[in-house]
Amino acid sequence: MEATIAITEAEHKKTKPDPETLQFGKTFTDHMFTMEYTEEKGWIYPEIKPYAPVEIDPAAMVFHYSQSVFEGLKAYKGPEGDIILFRPEENFKRMNRSNRRLRIPPINEELVLDYLRQLLELEKDWVPSAEGTSLYIRPFVIATEPSLQVAPARSYKFLIILSPVGSYYPEGIHPVSIMVEDHFTRAARGGTGTAKTGGNYSSGYTAQSKASSEGHAQVLWLDGVEKKYIEEVGSMNVFFKIDGEIVTPELNDSILEGITRKSVIELLEYWNIPVVEKRITMQEILKAYDEGRLEEAFGSGTAAVISPIGELHWKEHTLIVNGRDTGETTKSLYQTLTSIQTGKEDDPFNWTTKIKL
Amino acid sequence: MEATIAITEAEHKKTKPDPETLQFGKTFTDHMFTMEYTEEKGWIYPEIKPYAPVEIDPAAMVFHYSQSVFEGLKAYKGPEGDIILFRPEENFKRMNRSNRRLRIPPINEELVLDYLRQLLELEKDWVPSAEGTSLYIRPFVIATEPSLQVAPARSYKFLIILSPVGSYYPEGIHPVSIMVEDHFTRAARGGTGTAKTGGNYSSGYTAQSKASSEGHAQVLWLDGVEKKYIEEVGSMNVFFKIDGEIVTPELNDSILEGITRKSVIELLEYWNIPVVEKRITMQEILKAYDEGRLEEAFGSGTAAVISPIGELHWKEHTLIVNGRDTGETTKSLYQTLTSIQTGKEDDPFNWTTKIKL
Ligand SMILES: Cc1ncc(COP(=O)(O)O)c(C=O)c1O
Ligand SMILES: Cc1ncc(COP(=O)(O)O)c(C=O)c1O
Repeated sequence: MEATIAITEAEHKKTKPDPETLQFGKTFTDHMFTMEYTEEKGWIYPEIKPYAPVEIDPAAMVFHYSQSVFEGLKAYKGPEGDIILFRPEENFKRMNRSNRRLRIPPINEELVLDYLRQLLELEKDWVPSAEGTSLYIRPFVIATEPSLQVAPARSYKFLIILSPVGSYYPEGIHPVSIMVEDHFTRAARGGTGTAKTGGNYSSGYTAQSKASSEGHAQVLWLDGVEKKYIEEVGSMNVFFKIDGEIVTPELNDSILEGITRKSVIELLEYWNIPVVEKRITMQEILKAYDEGRLEEAFGSGTAAVISPIGELHWKEHTLIVNGRDTGETTKSLYQTLTSIQTGKEDDPFNWTTKIKL
Repeated sequence: MEATIAITEAEHKKTKPDPETLQFGKTFTDHMFTMEYTEEKGWIYPEIKPYAPVEIDPAAMVFHYSQSVFEGLKAYKGPEGDIILFRPEENFKRMNRSNRRLRIPPINEELVLDYLRQLLELEKDWVPSAEGTSLYIRPFVIATEPSLQVAPARSYKFLIILSPVGSYYPEGIHPVSIMVEDHFTRAARGGTGTAKTGGNYSSGYTAQSKASSEGHAQVLWLDGVEKKYIEEVGSMNVFFKIDGEIVTPELNDSILEGITRKSVIELLEYWNIPVVEKRITMQEILKAYDEGRLEEAFGSGTAAVISPIGELHWKEHTLIVNGRDTGETTKSLYQTLTSIQTGKEDDPFNWTTKIKL
């Protein structure tokens, strides 16, 4: 399918940043994709144009009631110079689930994937190829109707912006320290935790900054009802290896269904490593630790792919996981996933989409 | 205090809307106030300029992680033609509490109130004078730094926009039907419920539309932990009269501290009507109803001031409050508050701020 869209090329191209000093989400490419939604016409005016500020009415509902959703995925430069996407259709499926929760009209997933392909073809020189680098893709939808009524908007803007990003581990993959958050809640039962909507993220800043100031990399979120059950780590899903078995919190209405999480589970099953999705209390993890059965712990998400956990801090307890070393399974998952994503290894699952140039 | 700001007058003034057909938050005045925040300089460039779209980078953090707060208050045309504000210093105090929760730098409350005064002086002809009408004031802050990192922004924009609004009750104050929401949560314990931040509002759209489709005006929110305790009604605080005593949920970390709520409590105390802030379960309300002790129920908030509740629907129960009539205390509160707000009655509390023209 080749969708027709208006393309306006930027007159002046930016200088590409040094791949050595790339940060996350600070530099953007020359072009962006935009389209609009109106109640009468649906999604219209698909357009690729120079990356530039957007003009928005100060009464646009996104500013007041945060009606917005976003996605995040990465494009890698493959060994043959093609561009490789990792399960992009899953991102647009999830965007539509987020849209439903936020009362935003659905997008046409197939069409949007084709718009993205066209944008990437134009921006192909922006996909970095150094070890660990990639082009981060940020599709998002914002409510643009100028109205202060607390109700779903009748007009929206969908955009895709692109940002070349550096390696998450410039000094190699290494385990981090995590603080278990006992007071603040990421997402309530009956809340919006399963949706990628902005309000779930800024609401975590206070806990995150408390953790940072105490020297931890991320927060481990517990459930909002009993503050007992493990939900996520920062903006990642979380896994533990106990007695040779991998466990991860089962999906509920406050956990984001990560695409990396799904891939980790599928890969473990393919490897015949036992993996179980269930409710897990922090108390169980402490017990396993005390009994010497907690073997590994890691987070999973698009940004870091796999992020080993070296320490867990909960109340008066400090859990040192695997002597602060990256565990075997954690390492294999990281290796295999990143090798599939970058086209260095076969993709038996058909996860990748290649854009030939 | 007279703060110095740059003022650019609009060349073309809009036609004022017919006060008879005014909706809420759909029409905006000729000018707006804006200022910027940078880490180096703090809040700078205070400016009154023509109301117009703002130019914002598509990577501005407000679009992605909803780091934003807002306030809402009203200006009334007084009997002598002056402009009357109701407890505006409370709104800017609350904005700073919201700012703290969202990791947004504080504003100078006194200075901002003076900026608002100057904006209102310029827009004085936009303050409608017909019964029930007012000029709704919307101050808000949005994170403008272009960055996809999940962290507090380093630059912000503060704006004030103004919207002439019609009577909330074009056909006179009348009781509405409310649906008690058993599944969805407005704000979690440990969440952002005490802050006026966008994410708390769009997250309620699904419940609100379920209620609307069943013929109810608003949702009554229960606590996010046990789904037992009453929290708020729509975007209002809530009060019940039981056995001659007024009860309202006590403040916790998921209820917004309404300025109308505070004023209602102070007014009731002034009148020597017993008023109690405490945890209230929906079960208690049902019991009081079954025993014939539930005398009145109403919501309180800037938009409607006082909104009588005629019916409560909870599970299989329907509670008809006061025969669907507005109760005596509800009526007195509405009368007195609106009379003080519009300058028709004395203000023994010194709640109002008058801008002489
Ligand atoms: C809250 C949250 N949890 C988990 C994830 C991981 O999801 P994914 O693996 O699809 O990147 C994300 C997104 O990155 C997230 O925002
Ligand atoms: C969630 C919520 N509760 C209650 C209120 C009432 O507050 P106030 O009386 O200050 O308008 C508001 C704001 O209007 C609100 O947004």
